[in-house]
Amino acid sequence: MAAVAAEVGVSVPTVSKVLNGRPDVSPATRARVEIALQRSGYRRRRQAQPGGTPPLLDLVFHEIGSAWATEIIRGVEEAASAAGVGVVLSASGGHHHPGQGWVERVLARRPVGVISVMSTLHPDQRRRLASRSVPLVVLDTDGEPPPDVPTVGSSNWHGGLSATRHLLELGHRRVAVVTGPADVLCSRARVDGFRSAHDESGVTLDPALVRYGDFEVAGGHHHGRELLSLPERPTAVFAGSDMQALGVLRAARELGLRVPADLSVVGYDDLPLAAYVDPPLTTVHQPLRDMAVTATRMLLDPQPGDDDRPRRVELGTHLVVRDSTAPPPPR
Amino acid sequence: MAAVAAEVGVSVPTVSKVLNGRPDVSPATRARVEIALQRSGYRRRRQAQPGGTPPLLDLVFHEIGSAWATEIIRGVEEAASAAGVGVVLSASGGHHHPGQGWVERVLARRPVGVISVMSTLHPDQRRRLASRSVPLVVLDTDGEPPPDVPTVGSSNWHGGLSATRHLLELGHRRVAVVTGPADVLCSRARVDGFRSAHDESGVTLDPALVRYGDFEVAGGHHHGRELLSLPERPTAVFAGSDMQALGVLRAARELGLRVPADLSVVGYDDLPLAAYVDPPLTTVHQPLRDMAVTATRMLLDPQPGDDDRPRRVELGTHLVVRDSTAPPPPR
Repeated sequence: MAAVAAEVGVSVPTVSKVLNGRPDVSPATRARVEIALQRSGYRRRRQAQPGGTPPLLDLVFHEIGSAWATEIIRGVEEAASAAGVGVVLSASGGHHHPGQGWVERVLARRPVGVISVMSTLHPDQRRRLASRSVPLVVLDTDGEPPPDVPTVGSSNWHGGLSATRHLLELGHRRVAVVTGPADVLCSRARVDGFRSAHDESGVTLDPALVRYGDFEVAGGHHHGRELLSLPERPTAVFAGSDMQALGVLRAARELGLRVPADLSVVGYDDLPLAAYVDPPLTTVHQPLRDMAVTATRMLLDPQPGDDDRPRRVELGTHLVVRDSTAPPPPR
Repeated sequence: MAAVAAEVGVSVPTVSKVLNGRPDVSPATRARVEIALQRSGYRRRRQAQPGGTPPLLDLVFHEIGSAWATEIIRGVEEAASAAGVGVVLSASGGHHHPGQGWVERVLARRPVGVISVMSTLHPDQRRRLASRSVPLVVLDTDGEPPPDVPTVGSSNWHGGLSATRHLLELGHRRVAVVTGPADVLCSRARVDGFRSAHDESGVTLDPALVRYGDFEVAGGHHHGRELLSLPERPTAVFAGSDMQALGVLRAARELGLRVPADLSVVGYDDLPLAAYVDPPLTTVHQPLRDMAVTATRMLLDPQPGDDDRPRRVELGTHLVVRDSTAPPPPR
């Protein structure tokens, strides 16, 4: 701390104020101190919360309201509570980045770490966490994660491959895909798996059958209606999420198509509801709960060498075959 | 504090230690100090977290893994974050009471309050929160809430009444009910509403059609199979939750009954998925998110007079008619 103070030309108490997230430091000074701290490799030892309160970790979401989020919350809570760590939950309210007040609140409560789910932290926010030695783990990722951040994901490419192989093996030759936004990396990985399965079977892929949307029911419904109204409609749809698959099922119902007799549908995620809907969904199991447990453990038990090269973990996906897929109808 | 110290015969620093959740006080002394504090009506003013960290509230669940829980988490997070308060989430892991370590951790982090959801605090846990002036609000309730605790619920009786009225008005005369455990007050309130609707229409209720189970898919499926295999089977089932209703839908499907042509089904909760399943569920809307927002505001903005008589708030439920209900099949 003395070296950093000398380098920046401020007092040691000023450096200490910055470390403790105190507001009475000018933004310019704070920025200079943080940069010097980061460059110096200063690591504050993990400490108890102020006043001897039990340790906390921060879990920040893009949005909470989905069954998808519930699986993650469940996994993080289980792993954190087993380690005696409390979980503080926040949502960036549908915004891409959490608001500026968020990082202040996080720093002030000095968590043992932050898990970010589909909520991209601004580089400045990441820098501020790093300058206070608050580790960050990113769960899944909606873009190119920065190289210096540990991440836990799942094998999206393989998920797309196994879902599409299953449909092609059943005999489908016109298979559509409806996935998430094109700028979200996991969507692209799944579509690439979808293409690879076509390539390896020698089945030509009609580009008109590849659709990017969002992961919600409404998106699945919209694209489902369009695809199923094509003059030469697909006999199978691989959806980017179970919610999207529900939208496709609804579109099929509205158009009088029976699933799986007239149309096969594969979902993605294997949320608990996938087993309960009619027909029970064939879907790609994404191990959300395990991913959450892994991210939490990674945060709470850093391994030697983690500082040199942040870990990236990708957990496996696998296809769960239920009743929404069958051979295509006879032509 | 001095008066309490004198009454118990300990030093003021000992009282202060008890107030601050420090472990170095014998259990016997702590109990005596807590009782004296509670009797003295001592209220610690709401204070910032130690070390100037931002305020937190604790949200404790019986279990997290349901869409039901997600709606509540969402409401609490929204209301708390609007007030600049962080939410610490914990689950009692399916146990009826949170474990003993839980209250220690909560007290040590000095939250502005605790919201308990379907997770009954042990009287000793409630006493310890009260002795530290940590307010408690109970959301919904799985039993007889103690008279001195503010609660937020919803009108279960009216929910049962309106669901059953709807079925009787459609012309059903053999209506079954599958609800939660008989020792859970909300189950009994809903069944009482179900009975009242029969009484007011002069329709005789067959006791064989009243079933208590749990709120899960499996329970709905089990009771659904039994009810629909009766020699004189019901033409409508009112389920205690949307998840249970999904179980009944599955039982109907297995037995070759069409919904709503052969069987009408009403759910309870109106979770987001109720609108997406096939057929979209007629269900009683339970305002879970509003209930969560109300509980949070009650905790963060106590009103004058709250100390004298804890508030009990019951938010309204209403029936949402979708496609799972229709007149009974012709006999």
